[in-house]
Amino acid sequence: MKPLLVTMGDAVGIGPETIVHAFGRGELHDAVVVGDLAVLRRAGAPMTALIERPADLLAVPPGCLPVLAPPGLPEGLAGLPWGRVDARCGAAAARCIEQAVTLVRRGEARAIVTAPIHKEALAAAGVPYPGHTEMLQALAQEAGAAPPPVRMMLANDELRVVLVTIHLALRRAIDAVTYEAVLETLRIAHRAAAAWGQDRPRIAVAGLNPHAGEGGLFGDEELRIIGPAVQAAVAEGIDASGPYAPDTVFMRARHAPGHAGEFDLVVAMTHDHGLIPVKYLGVEQGVNVTLGLPFVRTSPDHGTAFDIAGRGTADPASLIAALAMARRLVDAA
Amino acid sequence: MKPLLVTMGDAVGIGPETIVHAFGRGELHDAVVVGDLAVLRRAGAPMTALIERPADLLAVPPGCLPVLAPPGLPEGLAGLPWGRVDARCGAAAARCIEQAVTLVRRGEARAIVTAPIHKEALAAAGVPYPGHTEMLQALAQEAGAAPPPVRMMLANDELRVVLVTIHLALRRAIDAVTYEAVLETLRIAHRAAAAWGQDRPRIAVAGLNPHAGEGGLFGDEELRIIGPAVQAAVAEGIDASGPYAPDTVFMRARHAPGHAGEFDLVVAMTHDHGLIPVKYLGVEQGVNVTLGLPFVRTSPDHGTAFDIAGRGTADPASLIAALAMARRLVDAA
Repeated sequence: MKPLLVTMGDAVGIGPETIVHAFGRGELHDAVVVGDLAVLRRAGAPMTALIERPADLLAVPPGCLPVLAPPGLPEGLAGLPWGRVDARCGAAAARCIEQAVTLVRRGEARAIVTAPIHKEALAAAGVPYPGHTEMLQALAQEAGAAPPPVRMMLANDELRVVLVTIHLALRRAIDAVTYEAVLETLRIAHRAAAAWGQDRPRIAVAGLNPHAGEGGLFGDEELRIIGPAVQAAVAEGIDASGPYAPDTVFMRARHAPGHAGEFDLVVAMTHDHGLIPVKYLGVEQGVNVTLGLPFVRTSPDHGTAFDIAGRGTADPASLIAALAMARRLVDAA
Repeated sequence: MKPLLVTMGDAVGIGPETIVHAFGRGELHDAVVVGDLAVLRRAGAPMTALIERPADLLAVPPGCLPVLAPPGLPEGLAGLPWGRVDARCGAAAARCIEQAVTLVRRGEARAIVTAPIHKEALAAAGVPYPGHTEMLQALAQEAGAAPPPVRMMLANDELRVVLVTIHLALRRAIDAVTYEAVLETLRIAHRAAAAWGQDRPRIAVAGLNPHAGEGGLFGDEELRIIGPAVQAAVAEGIDASGPYAPDTVFMRARHAPGHAGEFDLVVAMTHDHGLIPVKYLGVEQGVNVTLGLPFVRTSPDHGTAFDIAGRGTADPASLIAALAMARRLVDAA
């Protein structure tokens, strides 16, 4: 079985140490880290093995963390102070992601799990993407074609939420809630669920306005945009319904002991409508999944946490959950 | 001790039956229902006692539900089909609320607990308020004075959330997030908490935009409006902080076994930012409290549920929680 690839993320954030912790718990048995050997040693890896190709994982002795170092990594990363924005870290993080995409697209690995990167470090390195999602979308673009439409999904044991808009001011997010954007989100969510074994997921669509507009009384986006997009999706054979009042649809979709959720997925119009409920019970189990890419990519649902980086106290739970989710998605595909 | 008043809400919704269920469980021992006798009988009340004034509660025999019928109630309410919008129900619901406010302001009762009303029925009856909060605010207005500034608080065992804006289209809600509105909300929340025994509540203010604007990258309301209002509140001695990222502040404020919340109250800019987390674990324990009125008013955190009205299956848990909250607020005051 081909390995998973774990990109190390920002070298001075908590990414490397969460990787080392997860390895120590036996959670990286089928994975190769794409990163810098010295960075991972500084983060606490007791033994490491530098490998050339993912398939070399088989030859790595037990207890050694397998590291694949992409060509062109900046020098001296392991000497940089923890938790400070540095262009070299941004450049290194981007190189690791590029290399991971190359390897997975060549068929040498089965999925990518990304440790957190820092937006400002990326920008300082001249990387023209605000985050992973946008960068992966660009790297997945075929020559001569448009970039594939992608969407962010946040998932935990109770809830799976797919977002129509993400990193936009709320005012601009409202403008970005178009018929095409909602319908495309429904198509992407529907197709993605097939990859994890749900051929016809029950998708609830949350409205934008209080009470989903209450029949036009508090906003008409539900009548003009969201409702028609839901109907178009239904006509394509997608099991979509709504728009529902945002304040109760997540409660209804929640899967918990004694509470069978009414839906398999919720599509939310804005970043916070979707993320408030996913994070409410804690971020430890949250996983971020990019839907719409030609490969599987997951990541933990937290950032670089510069304030605690280097202390060795970072919790690897979300990374471990991201690894488990990646395995589930490739196994089902 | 003066009684609580419970308004019956929409006659063909679940309000009357939740009242009867709560009465059957002994939860209305200190309360009088303001409503229509026949409606409450149809909802299952075994015995009823029509009374003239709240003080007559003392003379009501055990096992009899005390009902105070306001003058001017429409005829034939108990003959209307369950779960259908009717102007007569809207008019009756409004009459009950008016009467309850009159009685509590005259000092004949100690608080008001309102069963759910239906916005469309209210509108059909020509009542010029979209909901309870707005109607109570108007009824509390002193002659010649402006209506008192009020805010909606949603509370359950884990979380207390006070809203800056409520029933507005999201676009208009953003416009309504002004410096004055945020500061006034902080003042109202601070004062209200004193009434339940917290002299200096720790108030977290949630931002409006993703990541609370990420330093102006995704919107500047946090820099222009919310941050300065928080600082002004702090200068007045209020223990306010923020704005925080909306997607994690509710998780941080959550009070649960093993999870001591960091804050006593969260102020949210929009209806759904605030209500999604309060309702996420279920609406059974949720209570709606109007802050800023010259009397205590609480209500269950659910609507008329026309789809199940009349079956006798509605859960009175939220009404019972609203009664308990009303008692706590008047006792502390």
